[in-house]
Parts: sequence; structure tokens; C-alpha cells
Amino acid sequence: MAYTVTPWKVQGDVDYNKIMKEFGVQAIDDKLAKRIKKHTGELHHLIRRNIFFAHRDLKFILDEYEKGNKFFLYTGRAPSGHTHMGHLVPWMFTKWLQDKFDVELWFQFPDEEKFLFNEKLTLEDTAKYTTENMLDVIALGFDPKKTHFIVDTKHANLMYKEALKVAKKITFSTAKSAFGFTNDQNIGAIFYTAMQAVPAFLPSVIKKKKIPCLIPHAIDQDPHFRVSRDVIPKLGHYKPASIQCRFLPGLGGMHGDGKMSSSSGDNATIFTTDDEKTVKKKINKYAFSGGQVTVEEHRKKGGNPDVDVSYQWLQFFEEDDKKLKKYYNDYKSGKLLTGELKAILIDKLNKFLVKHQKAREKARSKLDKFIYKV
Amino acid sequence: MAYTVTPWKVQGDVDYNKIMKEFGVQAIDDKLAKRIKKHTGELHHLIRRNIFFAHRDLKFILDEYEKGNKFFLYTGRAPSGHTHMGHLVPWMFTKWLQDKFDVELWFQFPDEEKFLFNEKLTLEDTAKYTTENMLDVIALGFDPKKTHFIVDTKHANLMYKEALKVAKKITFSTAKSAFGFTNDQNIGAIFYTAMQAVPAFLPSVIKKKKIPCLIPHAIDQDPHFRVSRDVIPKLGHYKPASIQCRFLPGLGGMHGDGKMSSSSGDNATIFTTDDEKTVKKKINKYAFSGGQVTVEEHRKKGGNPDVDVSYQWLQFFEEDDKKLKKYYNDYKSGKLLTGELKAILIDKLNKFLVKHQKAREKARSKLDKFIYKV
Repeated sequence: MAYTVTPWKVQGDVDYNKIMKEFGVQAIDDKLAKRIKKHTGELHHLIRRNIFFAHRDLKFILDEYEKGNKFFLYTGRAPSGHTHMGHLVPWMFTKWLQDKFDVELWFQFPDEEKFLFNEKLTLEDTAKYTTENMLDVIALGFDPKKTHFIVDTKHANLMYKEALKVAKKITFSTAKSAFGFTNDQNIGAIFYTAMQAVPAFLPSVIKKKKIPCLIPHAIDQDPHFRVSRDVIPKLGHYKPASIQCRFLPGLGGMHGDGKMSSSSGDNATIFTTDDEKTVKKKINKYAFSGGQVTVEEHRKKGGNPDVDVSYQWLQFFEEDDKKLKKYYNDYKSGKLLTGELKAILIDKLNKFLVKHQKAREKARSKLDKFIYKV
Repeated sequence: MAYTVTPWKVQGDVDYNKIMKEFGVQAIDDKLAKRIKKHTGELHHLIRRNIFFAHRDLKFILDEYEKGNKFFLYTGRAPSGHTHMGHLVPWMFTKWLQDKFDVELWFQFPDEEKFLFNEKLTLEDTAKYTTENMLDVIALGFDPKKTHFIVDTKHANLMYKEALKVAKKITFSTAKSAFGFTNDQNIGAIFYTAMQAVPAFLPSVIKKKKIPCLIPHAIDQDPHFRVSRDVIPKLGHYKPASIQCRFLPGLGGMHGDGKMSSSSGDNATIFTTDDEKTVKKKINKYAFSGGQVTVEEHRKKGGNPDVDVSYQWLQFFEEDDKKLKKYYNDYKSGKLLTGELKAILIDKLNKFLVKHQKAREKARSKLDKFIYKV
């Protein structure tokens, strides 16, 4: 089945094995997982379930860490709308990495990216969403002492000069083949990848020493780092390492939009600001079911958890392996009905969101602590 | 005869009539010259001699000025080396415009431009030359209260956001055809024209009102403004007007490098920091002569001031029309020998440079007054 994965478009039923070969990323095998576990005590459920499934140079990061040379984390969010559950996935994992390895996180808000790639968005729109998205990041509990927010247009004095050094070493041909640009692409969009490269070495520039960088991100962002990994060592910095996750499927299921996208309409998405009623309504109405048409048939034949969106989502958000296994078996046997599985997910999400939304409101007064001071 | 005029390369015997048609700029005719004179009392010798020879929308600037709507001036210098006499030409004219019309000047130092277009230059090089070049601008006597220096990497917080708005409206196709880019061009160089567009409307953004902009510049920079003039009105600002000058010929004459360039070697150039002996030596040794091979022949046949570089230079730097006319006639008749004409130029340049170099040293303590405070 056909699919597309670029930093600006994810569509179709993504074949992750194929994409690993295409992009040239490595699988996280048992040996590597064990090596992570040595330092973290336990493995995050997103690794256990192969949702964070691939990497580049993670061994280098662990080698250096074991020599006492700590890495920093870099991830980001290009503000273009409200935060949805899909966005939280790599951030939750990043928070875990920060806690377990006790490392700094540089979080980029490239507020120009979606402006440049979306005809309708203005810089006022992206500025508004930058603040909204920041609240969600803070609400996840990152350590303000070890977390630095970078906003491209606000930190341009810091960023632009470094981006120029990257840009000088990337030709239009390279950008064209990595991102599928045509001659109709605007010159800001063409330049943009240089800005996304900067946080991968900015801490090394600021602290005037080489520091390894690990970038947790969804697999669609890999083309940016594929290009910048070639350039950054030429500027005297370590080649950044990365760890990639799959996409949280949209409520409509995995055979439509592979990635849950806020641009596929509000009903394909759970936003972090959705209230309990809305969450319940959306899941009940829109979450694609792997169940049979009638209760009788479901009891007899059982459901298919591998295509059921509620089950897929529980893989991302239910940390307890035993519970998850039980849901899988019970749904497959027909013991658990689709409505019941949906109720489990609704409960799980709402418990999380009620807490998240409180933390999110408290985050308004903390913004200043997180935004990097030049 | 073949010639090339782009913002990064000027070569051959430039045909200014042809270039006016090619670029689509208008000649400064007598009617327009008179209209300028109405406001300035006298005409600058660079206009009288058709060295500032072309314009775009100068009538609009005068219309608005006569309605009481003052314009601001915008010019610049991309730091890549020491300042030479050719650089001073548009700046001297700009100073005259500032004095006569009592207007603000925004002076851009795009310290990334030559870094992006020249493999060998580093940002440390361009930073060093930025300061050096600033000293020459200040030494010309601009009013610090009405003159604002903008340095792209230092004022990126101000510039980058505005450049993005421009960049979004320029495709690679447009940049390709305006600047002759190929797919091998680096993505920073492709983006750069957006940064050069910004000072043409930045004062309007800062002061939150539409202010007309007049850009005095050498004709090679026109492709930038040809592109940005289409874009800037779409952002809600006036289309910037411009006034263009010819190039000061290199010492080797007009049939080699049309433009005097510091990259054609130190001997083709008089730098603002050259001492009296160096100036004398360079003019005597390298200034292309329009004279005859022997004194006897020169006395009999006369010289050709139209190709003689010393005479060409006096057109730029000798303000007195009567003196200039006498030099022309005497050289043509054979009364004035090449050595004598060179001595006149040497004296003229050294008198200027001794004064300029003193002002240049004093300028070091004034830098801070000129650099725009955000």
C-alpha cells in the first residue's frame, strides 16, 4: 500500500520496516534495549512496545555517557495549531530520558516553519500557538533548571548566525532530493532546514565544548537530520544521534492518515484541551473499531485489536503491560466489546487530561523560567 | 562587447544604456534633475555628470516629499574587505541626500552575504570588515541622530521575522531567474535576498506607519530590489524607490573589470586606508593612461580623456565643473601630460584621504552611536 512520509505530510499505511531501510535508520534491537535498561533501571513502555523503534548512533551516545560524557536532548514542535495527543508521545519519552539520564533538554519552537509551508498561517497565528504548545510541554513536568525553550524568531540573534554556517554547506540539489522540493518552493522554506539543524549543536557553541546530542522525534522529521548530520561535523561538532518513534494513528484508523494530524479535522484528533465530554464523544463516535458488526458476532468471532484504534492508543498511553495484554486477549476472544474497550481508553485519557489541564494552567506562570535567556 | 552585471560579479565594458533597458530602470532626465534641484538648491556633481544615471519611482518620492511625506534612505555595504574609493561613491551621494532633504538613513551591513557567496570568507572575517567599513561610513560625516546601522547577524531578532514574510513570497524560480542561480547554489545564498529586502520597510514596521523609501545604490544591486519591489507592497508597505550609479572604474581601466573591485587585487584599487605614498605609487604605476607613447606625440596628437582612468576618477571626485572641463580640454589638446593629470588626481585623493583617515580614527569612539538600539 502506498504511503508518504515527509516532515510536512504523512499519509497512507506507513510500512515502518520499509521506511527504516529507505531512511537508513537502525532498529532498536534487544542488545541496545538492554544497554539502555542498564542505566534507566526499567525500559519505557514506548521502547518495550517498539513505538520508539529506530535510531541513529544511539550506541555512540551510550559509549560517551559511559565514559562520563553526558549528552543533551533536543526535540521540538513547529507551532501550527493546538497540541494533540500525538504530539505528546515523543515529549513524554523525552521527559523520561531527561529524568533517567539527568540531562539538559533544548526544546525548539520553530515558529516560522509552518508559516513558510502553509499558505494560510500568519506569524501571529504561529506566535499564539507557540505559547499554547509551550504550556503542554511544561505541563508534562520537565525540569525548568535543565530545560531551555528556543523560539526561532525570538532567538534569531542566537540562531541565524549558526544556521548560516549550516546553510552554506547545503545546496538546493540536496534540499530538493531530501524534501522533494520543486522550483515553486519559496526561498524561506528552502532555507528552513538550516534553522532546524541549529539546536543540535547550539549548546556546544554556547558552552564552548563538544557535547553529544540525542534527538527523540517522530520518524517524519528524519530527512532534516539526515541532511544536517552530514554538515554538523564539518562545523566542528559531534554528529547528532537520534531515536525515532512511530505515529499515533488518527481516530479514523491507520489506513487513512497514518499520522494523527490536527489538520485532518478536529474529529480525527484529541486535543490536550478537550474536556471529558468531548473526549468521550470523539472516541465513541470516531475511533475506528476492530469489532464485529453485532454483539453476538463479536462474542463469537472476537475483535481485531491490531486495527482497533482504541487498542492502538492504549499501546501508547497504558503503561501497564499486564493490563494491556488482558485488553488484547479479551478483545480478541470477544470477551471485551468495542464499547467497553472505548470506555477503558476514555477513562485513561480523561484521567490523564484532567491532571494535564490543571498543570497546563499552572504552566502559564512558569513560561518565563523555560524560555532561554541569552 | 560582452559584460556581466550581477550583485556578485561585474565584468567587462558595461553598456549602461543597454543595462537600463535590460533592468527596466528609467534615466534621470533634465525634468527630473530640475525637480530635484528645486529642493536641493544645487545638483550634486554625481547627478550633473550622469554618474547617478537611473532610477525607479523617484517621481513618487518627490511627489510624497512635496506633500510633506518624507522618505527615508536605505543603502548598505556587504563586508568582505577593506573599503575602497568605489564604495564611497554612493555613500557620498547618500550623505548629500540626507543633508539636503533632512532625512533618516538606514545603513545595512549584511555581514552574511559575502560569507554565503564566497567559499573562503568566514563570519569572523566579515565581522572584522563590518567594523572597518563602518568607520568609513561614519567618517563621511553622516548625522548620528538620523543614521542607523543594521548588522544582519546582530539585528537578526529584528530582521529574520520580516525576512520570512518576504521569503514566503519569492519562489526558487524567481530567485533563479533574477540572480542566475543553479541547483548547486547553497540554501543560505538562495534565502539571502529576503534579508536585503528588509531595511526597505523596516522603519515602517518599527514606526508603525507607511514611510516611503529611497535606495541609492550601484546598478549591480538592482536585481535584489527588482524582486523585492514586487513583494514589499503585498506586505502593506510602499514599493521602495531607488536611484542607481555607475561603477568607478578599476585602475586598470574600463575594458577589464568594469567595477573597481577589491577582489581584483590590491593594485587595481585605492583603499581608504592607503597612505600618501601608496596612492601616488598605485596611480602612477597602474592607472590606465589615455595618453600617447611619447611626450612629443602627446603634445602633437593629444590624449584621450574618455579612456584615461585618472580623468575618469576626477569625474567622480573633482566637484568643480570648471576645473574638470579644463583638465578634459587640456588633456585632449596635449597641453596636459598623463603624468601631470595623474599628479592632479594624486593630490586630490591624498587631500581627501588625509582628512578621511583622521575622521576614520575618530569614528572608532562613535560606533556605538550609529548602531541601531533595539
